[in-house]
Parts: sequence; C-alpha cells; structure tokens
Amino acid sequence: MTVRTLVKQLAAAADGPVRVSGWVETVRDQKKVQFVILRDETGAVQLVHPRTDVDEPGSDALATQISALSHGSFLTVTGELKHDERVKLGGLEVKIGEIEVTAAALDLPIAEDSSIDKRLDWRFLDLRRPEQNLVFRVQTTFLHALRSWWVENDFIEIHTPKLMASPSESRAELFEVEYFETKAYLAQSPQFFKQMAQPAGFGKVFEVAPAFRADPSFTSRHATEFISVDAEMSWVTSHEDVMRMHEQLLVAGLTAVKEKHGAEIEAAFGTTVTVPELPFPRIPLSEAHSILASRGYTVPRADGDLDPEGERRLSEYVKEQYGHEFVFVTDYTSNIRPFYHMRHEGDPSLTNSYDLIFNGTEISTGAQREHRIDVLVAQAKEKGMEPAELDFYLDFFRYGVPPHGGFGMGLSRVIMLLLHQPSIREVTYLFRGPNRLLP
Amino acid sequence: MTVRTLVKQLAAAADGPVRVSGWVETVRDQKKVQFVILRDETGAVQLVHPRTDVDEPGSDALATQISALSHGSFLTVTGELKHDERVKLGGLEVKIGEIEVTAAALDLPIAEDSSIDKRLDWRFLDLRRPEQNLVFRVQTTFLHALRSWWVENDFIEIHTPKLMASPSESRAELFEVEYFETKAYLAQSPQFFKQMAQPAGFGKVFEVAPAFRADPSFTSRHATEFISVDAEMSWVTSHEDVMRMHEQLLVAGLTAVKEKHGAEIEAAFGTTVTVPELPFPRIPLSEAHSILASRGYTVPRADGDLDPEGERRLSEYVKEQYGHEFVFVTDYTSNIRPFYHMRHEGDPSLTNSYDLIFNGTEISTGAQREHRIDVLVAQAKEKGMEPAELDFYLDFFRYGVPPHGGFGMGLSRVIMLLLHQPSIREVTYLFRGPNRLLP
Repeated sequence: MTVRTLVKQLAAAADGPVRVSGWVETVRDQKKVQFVILRDETGAVQLVHPRTDVDEPGSDALATQISALSHGSFLTVTGELKHDERVKLGGLEVKIGEIEVTAAALDLPIAEDSSIDKRLDWRFLDLRRPEQNLVFRVQTTFLHALRSWWVENDFIEIHTPKLMASPSESRAELFEVEYFETKAYLAQSPQFFKQMAQPAGFGKVFEVAPAFRADPSFTSRHATEFISVDAEMSWVTSHEDVMRMHEQLLVAGLTAVKEKHGAEIEAAFGTTVTVPELPFPRIPLSEAHSILASRGYTVPRADGDLDPEGERRLSEYVKEQYGHEFVFVTDYTSNIRPFYHMRHEGDPSLTNSYDLIFNGTEISTGAQREHRIDVLVAQAKEKGMEPAELDFYLDFFRYGVPPHGGFGMGLSRVIMLLLHQPSIREVTYLFRGPNRLLP
Repeated sequence: MTVRTLVKQLAAAADGPVRVSGWVETVRDQKKVQFVILRDETGAVQLVHPRTDVDEPGSDALATQISALSHGSFLTVTGELKHDERVKLGGLEVKIGEIEVTAAALDLPIAEDSSIDKRLDWRFLDLRRPEQNLVFRVQTTFLHALRSWWVENDFIEIHTPKLMASPSESRAELFEVEYFETKAYLAQSPQFFKQMAQPAGFGKVFEVAPAFRADPSFTSRHATEFISVDAEMSWVTSHEDVMRMHEQLLVAGLTAVKEKHGAEIEAAFGTTVTVPELPFPRIPLSEAHSILASRGYTVPRADGDLDPEGERRLSEYVKEQYGHEFVFVTDYTSNIRPFYHMRHEGDPSLTNSYDLIFNGTEISTGAQREHRIDVLVAQAKEKGMEPAELDFYLDFFRYGVPPHGGFGMGLSRVIMLLLHQPSIREVTYLFRGPNRLLP
C-alpha cells in the first residue's frame, strides 16, 4: 500500500500512484466525467473520474460511489497523480482508482453564509474553512515566536494555578467553584502568582494560559474564558522597561507571522502583515485626551478612561502621524488602575502603567508594580480591598522582593486585530460567553 | 550609574566597578571583615567589606548597615569586582561600595529542613533554593523543545475551553462552577475538544494547559489541578503511530534538557539525564502480567490494571532487560479504558491503547480513538454513559471524521521522575490538593 501524501506535497511528487486522505469539499457530477475536490489540512486537490457508464447507467460502480459522496465525508483515495497545467487548482489532478470512505457525513447543517451564532453551534465544521485553519496556524506561529524570544532571553515559563482561595482582581465577575468542603474561585488573571515569581527570585517569567471572568457583556472583544499572555520581570526601574520588552516581543511574533504566512494572509484576508518599527509611539493618557479633543472628540467616560471610540480615534491619529499600528498609552490615572500599580513618585494621581492599543483596540495592560509593603497595603485599603483576604499576596512583599513589572495581553484580541476580523469569536477555538458553553 | 550585571556574567566581566542585584543568602559578620552572599536568578556571588571600625565600633556606617541585613532582603550593590582564585565561590568577589536595600525581609519562616507542608505554605521562599529554580528552568527547556518539535512537524496549537457544559471523562471527580443561570464543569482533560480538531480538519494538534480533577487522594502523584500535555493526530492506523510520535517527542525534550542542564542536574540532584534510545520497548499488558508473575509479583487489582508497585517492578525489569527508562505497556483491556478508545478488530476485549511508564511510574495514556459513530455510541452505552449528555461530542463523528489518536501526559510527573524527586509537590509551581488552595 502506498503511503499517504499530503496535498501540499503533490506539487513536488512525480506522476504516478498516490494515496491522499481528506474530506469532500465539493462533487461535480457531470455526464461524462466526475470531479471531487478533496481537502486536507494542507490544501485542496481535484480528483477526477471519467465515467464508463455513459451508455449504460449504473454499470460503473465507482461512478455510483462518487455520486453518493456527501459533502464533508472523510475519504482515502488511491489513484494516479498527473501534473496538468490546464487544471486550475494547483496544476495537477488525481485520477481516482479506489475510494475508501472513512466516515460518511450527514447533510451539513451550516453554509458559508450562516450566522456567526449558527457557525459557533457547529464550530468543528466552521473550522474546516481554509481561512479558519489559517487563523490557528498564524496563532501557533505567533505564540511560538513569543515563547522562543522569551526562552532566548532567559525567561522561565510558569504555570500558575487557576483555582484560588480568593479573588485575584475584584469581587465582581468572579466564577465560584465547589471545592470539597469549601469554595474556590477561578483566576481572573495570573497577576498575583506571576508576581510571586519575583520574591521567589525567578527574575523573568512568562505564562500563556486561560483566565476566567464572569463578564456578562456581549461585545466583540469579551469572553468568559480567554487566553492571557503574561510576562513579569524583576529589577525594572519603571513601566518603560516593561514596554521595551513588550515591543521587542511583538516584533519577534509579527516577524515570524509575516515570514511564514504573510502571502497566505494577504490572499485569504486581503490584509498585509506589518512588522512594527521600534520603538512604538508612547503617548501619556492626558496627552491622548488633548489629541482627541483637538480632533473634535471628547471621551464620554466620567472616570477619564478611554472608551472604544476614543481608542479607535487615537489609533487613527497615530497611523496618520507615525504610520504605526501600535501605540502605548501611558501614565494612567490611579482611579482607573488596580491597587497594585505603582504610582508616580511625587504625584500619586498617576501610575507607572500603560495600555497597548493595536489597530484601534486595547490588547494589553502593563505596569510597574508597587513592591513596598506599606504603600501597597495603603493602596489596597484605598481601593476598598480587604487586606485580611489579601494576606497571602501581601506576604510576597514582606520577606524581600525586587522592584518588578509586567503585562497581560489577550491573545484572541491580538489575532483578531492582526487579521482584521470583526470579533474574537472568529479567532477563538471554542468561544465561551454568558450564554455559550457548547459545544 | 552602572548597568546591572547578572551574577553569571561576572566571570567574564573585567575587574572594576559593577552593580549587582539580588537577595541576601547569608551574612558572615566577622571582626575584621564582613561577607555577604548575594544570590540572583543566575547564581551567587560573594560581597566583601573590610571593616574600618575595628578600633572604633559604630564608626563604619556601611559595616553597621551590613550587620543589620536580614536574610532574604533584596539589595542593589555597587562595588568593585575583583577576580581572585582564592575565593571559593566562582573565583571572584565584589568589594562593597554602596548598598541600597530594595525591600528588607522579616525573619524567614522556613528553613532547608522544614516539612514539605510548611515549605508549600511559604512556596515563594522555598522556590528561592537553587535546585527549585533549576526545576523550572528544566521544565521551560523541556516544554520549549516539545513545542518546537510539534511546530517543526506542522502541529497546530489549540486552546480548548476549560469550562464545559458536561463532564469530559466521568461524573466522578468533577468540579462544578456557578455559571450565570446555569452550571458548568471544569475540564478533566481536553479529550473531547482535542478530538474535535479532527473533524475540523486540523490534522495534528497539541495543547499544554491545566486540567482539573476533584480527586480526594493524597498520593505523591495526584493533584486537583495539573498541567496536561496533549497531542492528537489524524489518519493514524493504530496506537503504534501515536507511540512513534510520542517517543520522538520525548527524545527531543530530553535531548534539549541534557544539553542545556545536564551538568547542573548532575550537580544539584546527583542524577544523570539519559536521552532514551528509539524505539522505546513495547510490552502488551497481558505480557506485563506474565513478566511480573514470573518475578514473583501478582498484581492485586481485580480489574487487571497495573498498580503502582506493578509499574515499578515492570520498570525494573525493563531497565535490566533493555537498559531503558521508558516502556509502553500496550493493548489494555476494554474494561479499564474509557468508551472512546478503539478496540481491537476481532477482539473487543482489548483496546488500541497504551500507558507510558517512566522510571517506575505512569506518566501518560494514549490510544487510537473510536471514530465510527455507531460503535462509539454502543461503547458509551456499555460504559453507562448517557448518550444524550454526550450529544455535542457524538456530533463530531456524524459529519465526517478521520481515524485519529493521541495522548495526554502529566507534565509534573515527567519532571518529578526525570529529576528523581519524591513528589509532584516539589516540581509544581503552586500545588493544589484537596486541602491546599493557598497561597
């Protein structure tokens, strides 16, 4: 028996016997000849069968088998490969010898134009679309480049627990778990535990892992479970050190994506991957407000945080002004930052923090952390936190700790914005929202 | 201001002014001279201060500061580097110029000989030990080598959801989550969703992510939250294809660990890392029982599964017989395998499955999966599963699916057995068990 050949390997294979495996994308059942488009994880190939039953219908068993093939069925086909420039699809086709149906498909319940909700109901079928497959190959390449950069720069990978005895960010949007005789909570972020690596003397750490928020919103960029890309490092002197690491990391990730998938992304999504220039532009939050105001937009939020429209417009400005898809908005005011962000020396109304905006949407928050226990406790109290409940976290600062900082970044947002997709639902393997737990 | 030099960089640095940052491991406060051992994430260095207050106690402010340094405090020290062969620790020392205490430590609550439970209470201090730091650098290298192997071999990384509408393995050992108006369950494994990648046409996938089991046991190898290393691939013809991938992957991982950390592991744990030979030995379960019986051990379990003592003895046999630390035990009986394992054609009492044993303990289960919907439903019913509850999973097999197989492997077990540690608690960043949710 011949060995399986991947579709992408056919171009370089010699004419002759081959075996291919994949699923039926289309069947064109013509009078004199039948065509099957078979797709596998690497591409699509045209299979052909010249009917021998034109004069005597039903006398060609193979033709009858091909006519009965349902879309989506998985097959193994042995046949003869022939390179032929006239064939549009890759300049080659396989003349079918024998078909083995591995699993016949029922009628497919979704089509190209099904609604996003219907497509998510049948996500495993939706993922068969070549663009969807590309999304996850892009994500694989992006993450591997990030991890490679971290490993080359001596970061240690950590796996922080997702089961916690108390909330990591706030009492709001918290999932509660029955944990033997007690309750546990799902980690809203790895924040406390990646900081723990600092008094532990790990120096520089990273983690790519799920985080959970009982967020009841239905926007295009929120999910109840999402992949958080996190890094934290010791001995920073301000958030500037974190931004420098962050931007280098993204350059590594986008360089790898452009090299490996740039042409495919262009073809599938009509989007050019741009490797950003270093350094990324940095704009203090207060200046961002002035820029927006001078362009006729007043951010409507009372707390002074940017709203999505403000982010979009600021991004537009940065593209015009600097030709850049990224912008660090820095020095957020303390009122809209968590208690563990370090504040400016001399001006406690501002923090050593930033948000990173990519193509109009926030993808990440970073900061230098407050490592002085007395200041940290005061800030926690000011934010209405209960120090007793935080005691295990505050202990991290009582037995020696270096100054440190880091960021958390939403993976699906990065991929969505990179590929100009309308929602993180399109780039998440299985989306989870307030009313979606299936499949 | 001089830039920070990492301790490991001092050996290659020229004599002269340097700045180092780290924490106080020991202070030797002698009459004429003071020594501080400062450790950072890369090693330890001796700092020295010749007292100038020998005749006039209290007149040397620096000496007074050094005397007051508590163990574990984090410092930045500027001083003069001097290479000196007589210094045991690395043949160099730094003459202290100035000390800046970043965060002074309270008296440390644990010591080298504290119990494992006490050490876990103060895990962030326990992790400062150089051997603990090494554990996580080894794990980082191991995982990066696995992922690199997968990426080079065209596997796609997936992130399956940990929130599910129904149990993934069994009703037992299941964590329940309050999910808005309904209940969710924490994934006991990514099994169903990594299989979903098969009808989705992804071909080959991998995932490294947390899994959750409400397992009330207190053994050295169980946790309620653990990192599961998973792979799944299409078009396998039996579990043999899965084992071939699995063993190549482990060779890649252990080769990288040996190259990067072999000498350090030898020094810290007295253990030699062995890159295993290919192929790993394979022993069918029935033969394993015969071997154990012939060596005087009858497995006490009624269901015929190997017990930990049986695994240990079988591993001993394999070491004697083949000089190998790994063994695939194959063809498990159907009664001790989940419903989704494919059974032998012609003998449904056996499955196309294996366990992988490493240095005496099981680290992984792999199998070819049953992809024929009618057989799968029958096997689920036979195991007492409720097909209605499994419907979303069974749908994966109704619209076309390739034959496929894969494995799940416990990361902490591999690292524990590689470094000959007594418990996964020693190699887990923050262990989670029935009575441990803190820190």
